[in-house]
Parts: sequence; structure tokens; C-alpha cells
Amino acid sequence: MTDSAVHPDLVLARTALAGVVRPRDLADGDAVALRYSRAVWSCLVEPGDGIAGRIVATLGPVAALQVATGRGAVAGVAARADLSSKDLARGRARWKPRLNDIVLPFEIARRRGIRMLVPEDPEWPVALSDLGDHAPLCLWFRGDPNRLSRAASSVALVGARAATGYGEHVAGELAAELASDGIAVVSGAAYGIDGMAHRAALSAGGDTIALLAGGVDRPYPSGHDQLLGRIATEGVVASEVPCGSTPTKWRFLARNRLIAALAQATVVVEAGWRSGSLNTAGHAAALGRPLGAVPGPITSAASAGCHRLLREFDARCITGSDDVRELLGLEVFTSASSDGGSPDRTRVLDALSSRSVRDTADIARRSGMAVDEAGGVLALLALSGDVQGDRSGWRRAR
Amino acid sequence: MTDSAVHPDLVLARTALAGVVRPRDLADGDAVALRYSRAVWSCLVEPGDGIAGRIVATLGPVAALQVATGRGAVAGVAARADLSSKDLARGRARWKPRLNDIVLPFEIARRRGIRMLVPEDPEWPVALSDLGDHAPLCLWFRGDPNRLSRAASSVALVGARAATGYGEHVAGELAAELASDGIAVVSGAAYGIDGMAHRAALSAGGDTIALLAGGVDRPYPSGHDQLLGRIATEGVVASEVPCGSTPTKWRFLARNRLIAALAQATVVVEAGWRSGSLNTAGHAAALGRPLGAVPGPITSAASAGCHRLLREFDARCITGSDDVRELLGLEVFTSASSDGGSPDRTRVLDALSSRSVRDTADIARRSGMAVDEAGGVLALLALSGDVQGDRSGWRRAR
Repeated sequence: MTDSAVHPDLVLARTALAGVVRPRDLADGDAVALRYSRAVWSCLVEPGDGIAGRIVATLGPVAALQVATGRGAVAGVAARADLSSKDLARGRARWKPRLNDIVLPFEIARRRGIRMLVPEDPEWPVALSDLGDHAPLCLWFRGDPNRLSRAASSVALVGARAATGYGEHVAGELAAELASDGIAVVSGAAYGIDGMAHRAALSAGGDTIALLAGGVDRPYPSGHDQLLGRIATEGVVASEVPCGSTPTKWRFLARNRLIAALAQATVVVEAGWRSGSLNTAGHAAALGRPLGAVPGPITSAASAGCHRLLREFDARCITGSDDVRELLGLEVFTSASSDGGSPDRTRVLDALSSRSVRDTADIARRSGMAVDEAGGVLALLALSGDVQGDRSGWRRAR
Repeated sequence: MTDSAVHPDLVLARTALAGVVRPRDLADGDAVALRYSRAVWSCLVEPGDGIAGRIVATLGPVAALQVATGRGAVAGVAARADLSSKDLARGRARWKPRLNDIVLPFEIARRRGIRMLVPEDPEWPVALSDLGDHAPLCLWFRGDPNRLSRAASSVALVGARAATGYGEHVAGELAAELASDGIAVVSGAAYGIDGMAHRAALSAGGDTIALLAGGVDRPYPSGHDQLLGRIATEGVVASEVPCGSTPTKWRFLARNRLIAALAQATVVVEAGWRSGSLNTAGHAAALGRPLGAVPGPITSAASAGCHRLLREFDARCITGSDDVRELLGLEVFTSASSDGGSPDRTRVLDALSSRSVRDTADIARRSGMAVDEAGGVLALLALSGDVQGDRSGWRRAR
């Protein structure tokens, strides 16, 4: 157990944080202790640890860390944090085995130019606070942190790794149109839909944010090494788990809640019946975020999950970027859709021929209208140029 | 103006109805007058004439016809029928031009073996009464009238004439599965989706009902002459307009309300943005009938109308015949879908390797759990055969 873990000594903390935060963030001792404590917390917990979240929120990260490591007084903490003593004890027992794992992540981060952001930073995306006690304790990232706060106008485009050509095409179209409209595209950097969404957003010169399940030092999937490098340069790649962490199944599920929380709305482009992206959709729904799903052929297993969302989760049916803008509450200009004329107008037009001339009585009989009614409608149709009339009768204008 | 039109003389009426109704229906004088009056009414009005519907409901078809033709007293009729005098006068002016058109339809029907059904017949489909004053005054049909009453368990499968291979495939699958399950398939006999739905229902040996916009003596479209002949033999072809009537645009719209009213639920399989089948869907929604739409690729214009229904009309997303059964309120047996284990289980499995043995403390650290917690989960996983353990530690079972 290293001393720096149990007591955020300022010199040690400044050393650990050097290169990981902006130099000016090392000026204020309290801020250094706070940043360092949050960074250590991210090494101790699995993502979404609600007990950690609760005591950090109650005591602040510094004092909470002292409780976690046994340096701070534990008496009364559970009651203050509205936890049972048993839960607090369980938390402490969970964190203890990780106390030896907190040095390496800082070393990797410093070496790889990876930085960290805390909720107290102005760039912190406030949307994440909707996760309450399950919010991340800090974020590790590569790229421009301002892009994280700009996620206030964003959409998560997610979907299956085993995407079809159709799904990738749609993901590309949506991402490009939304990104060029200033809407950031949030996704998980996986093969298939995620990768296509990031790529199209980059090509359109827009913002894109990749949230990873493992450490941001570990490009995952490895085949997206280059893509992640490009996102880190032109957008931002972030994770709540420290450098060196492997992307486990649990962390994928937890990462999905971050995608759903960070983005203003979530759209599932293509997903099989049990795709992980349904998990992201479930988080979006639970957070009260608008949820959309792109339909596909019912004969395509790759769209079965999207149809499930439409049926069971009341997701909005997304057929294009305008539908996504509507989902985000943005104004959409659509062409007026008047579906052609009145019943009387239809019936009189039905009764007319473009070849032969018919008199008003004949037209009345054919249309099932009174003679004077038919005459009135014919007059209006003549004004609009739809019929031509003379003394012998009427014909439909060609 | 023929005499038979203005006064339903029994001998004339019996002559007109001979061959058009069952012989036993000619025995009762009152029933003959009623049938004959309704048949004449169907010649005088355009489908869905609410004024005609109102006075027929108020006075009965016989007395109402006398009012229409000027033989009955008009005074007080408007008030009794809760109509303005102006509306009644307008109605009479509309019906008058058609009084010369009532002989030919009977002649055609008799010659072609076409019969008629009235709401007073036991075979009349009661669902049509949901149309109120706009219900048909009688139905002209070819085929077995019992199939009309059996429409109590039925679904309308409708869609675009310009269907794609995908749409026709889906229409065929749905119709065949539902028809062989004893659910009648109602449609409009058009090219594309309608035709495929009828055809597949017939091939499956099930019930199918075609509702036409023109007279049932006029196969429309003409390319479906043979198909309509087969439906008339094995199912039923019906229309509310008399023989000889052309299928006008107005009558197509009116026919759509019959499809929506007759069927228990309506499913649009494939439809363009302005397809006529959206009109059928609108009627179904207005009547409070369950409405479904089959999604398709958003890149397919032939599915744009279905997606519109999902978005704007809150149609249910239909991905197979089970979804249609659910729409009809029938019980559907689905396999339980448990989406794998508890969070703790997932985290412990993440922490295990199938190659190397790890001890409980290591697994606790990797999974972010307390040592005794991890030990408990490992024991359960060992019981279920998911992990193998010995004195040196645990590994994931292959």
C-alpha cells in the first residue's frame, strides 16, 4: 500500500498529477488534493460504484478517500451519507484490494500524454451529473476537453459490431449530416455502426467523442487504433477507468451508461435482438433521454433489436437526420403536406373526362351531387385551371 | 324516373331481386321491400353519404326511399332525423340525378350471379356498424357471404401497388401464417401488397375478403381478373357500390374505410409517403381499430409511409405474424428472454482466465469486489459449472 494512496500529500499528488492536468491546476493545494483524490478513486472502484459515489458526494473526494483507505474516521460516515454501515464496510472491503494499483495508471498517462478532468473543471460535461451516485468520479481523456462540454448539443449513434452495409450506410449519412450541423456524434468506437459514425463525423469536419470501456491508452478494438488516434486529434477519446484497465464485459455495460448520459439523445442505428447497444438504449430511457431507433427490413436480424426498441421501449422511428434533430428538440423545417383537395373536388374531378365534354347535370349524376353543388365546384375548378368549360359543358384540363 | 324507384311495388321488387337474394328472402313482403329499398339506395348515393345514412336509420330504408324519391311526406323528416332542412334538401337534390340509374345494376347482378346482403341479414358483418351514418346501405358480393361475418377474426393487410420484392415477400409470409391460423385476410385486390396478401391467404387454404371500389362485376385491376375469380370462389369479393359502377378516386377512398371497418386490425405492409393505404390506416385509427405498420429500410421510398405511421400515428411496429396476433389481442407464446446474470457474476467472470489459475484475492482486486464477496460468487459459479476451482485458485471453465 503506497503512502500516496492513503494520504494525498501535496508534493506526491503534484508529482502524480504533473502532465495529467494543466500546469495551472497544480497551483492551488486544495484543487490538487481534490484532483488527485478523484484520480485515485477512479483506480479503486469499478465504474458506477454507488457507495463510492455517495461518500464522495457527502464528504468530498479528499475526506472520502481517507475513509476508503482507513486514514479517516469511519464513525458516523455511513449515517451522514445515508448508507448502512454494512454497505460502507462492503465498499471499503471492495476498494482495499486495489490500493496497490494506483501508481501505474498515472505513469502510463504521463508517458502517453493522457490527461484527466474532474467534475469541478469548467469543461466537465454537466449532463453526467444525471447519473447521480453512479456518475464517473473523473474522466481520463486524449484530445480536446472542450469537446466534452460541447456535448451539450450531441447525439449518440450506436449499434451492432456485426452491422450490414445498410446499417453502415445509414450511420454514415446520419453522422455526416448531424456533425456538419454542429451536433457532436458520441459513440463507443466499436467496429460496425460506432466506427462508421465516428468516421463520418470526422470526414464532415464535425465533433466526435469516443467513450471507451478500457483505459484510453489501450485502443480497443485494436483495429481501430488509427481511427482512435484521429478522434483524439480532431475530437476527444475518454474513459472513466484509469490507464492500463482492460475493457471487461462489465466495463462495456458501464461505459454504455456514459454514452447515454453524455449525449442529449441516443439513436440505435442497427442492432441484433441482444445487441449491447440495447443496453445503451435502456440507459438512455432510464435517464429520460430521448431515444430513437432506425428501422430496417424485418427480414434482417441486424435490425431486430431496433424493432424491439420501437415496440417495447417506445423509441422514436428515425428515418433521417431531420428526425434526429426533432428528437433533440431542434426546429425542423418540413414542406407542408396537404393531401389534395376536398371530397367534393375529388368527386367532381372523378366525374370529368379529359376527352369528352360533359354537362353539369351529367357531372352531378356521376359524382352523386346536386346539380347546383356540382356547378359550384366546377366553377372553382375552372378558376384554378383544373377544368375547362364552355357552353356545351366541361372537360378536365390536360 | 321508373316507377319501381319511387314505389317499391312488391311484384316489381321481387322481380328486381330475383337471383340477387336467396329465394327464401322473397317470401316475406316487408323483407322484400326493405332489401329492394336498400339496393336502390346503393344506386342513388355515393359511398358514405351521411344524410342518406341518417334518414335510413331514422325512418327505415323503405320510408326513407319514399322521402328520397318525393313519394313520401318530407315535412318533419329533417327534424326527426336531426338534420337541417337544408341538408335534407341537399341530399334529395344529390340523389335525384341518379333515379334513372337503378335498373341496370340489378340486370347485371342477375346475369353475373352477383348477390346482395343487407344489415338485417345474419351474415352481415356487425363491425361495419361502427361506421354509423356512413356505413354501407347494402353490400353486393360474389362468393360465400358467411365469410363476411367470419371477418370478426380478421386483419387487413394493405399496401402500395408499387411494392418491392421485400414488401411482397413480407405480405406473403404474414398472410399465409395468419390465414392458416384461421384469421381472415382482408384487402383491396390492388397490384402489389394487396394482391400478394390475397394470393398467399388462398394458397394457405385460409379465408380472404376483397373489397372493391367499383362494382363487383368489374374486376379491378383487370390484371387481377383471375385472382378475383379465385377469391370469389374460395372467399368473397364485395362492394357497396352497385354493379356497373366505375372505381373512381372517391370510391377508392370510401372503400378504404370499409376495409378498415371490416377488419379487426389494419397492418400496412409497405407504403410510399402518400400511398392510399395511409388513408386506410387513418380510417382504422379513427375507428379505434389497432393499427400496425411493417418497417423497412429507411433508404426505401416504398417504406416511407409505414415509417410515417410509426412516427405520426403511433402504429405498432410489426415484425412478424406474432406481432399481428398481439395486435388482435390474441395470446402469443414467446420464449423467455433473460439477458444473462447479475452484475457481480459478470464482474467475477470478467476477472477470471480460462488459461491461468487466479486466487480469490486477485479476482477480488480485478473485479473491484471484497474478497469474501468474490469468494461467494465464485462458489456459486463453481456450482453452476462456470468456473473450476482447487486449492491454488480458480479458472474459467472452457
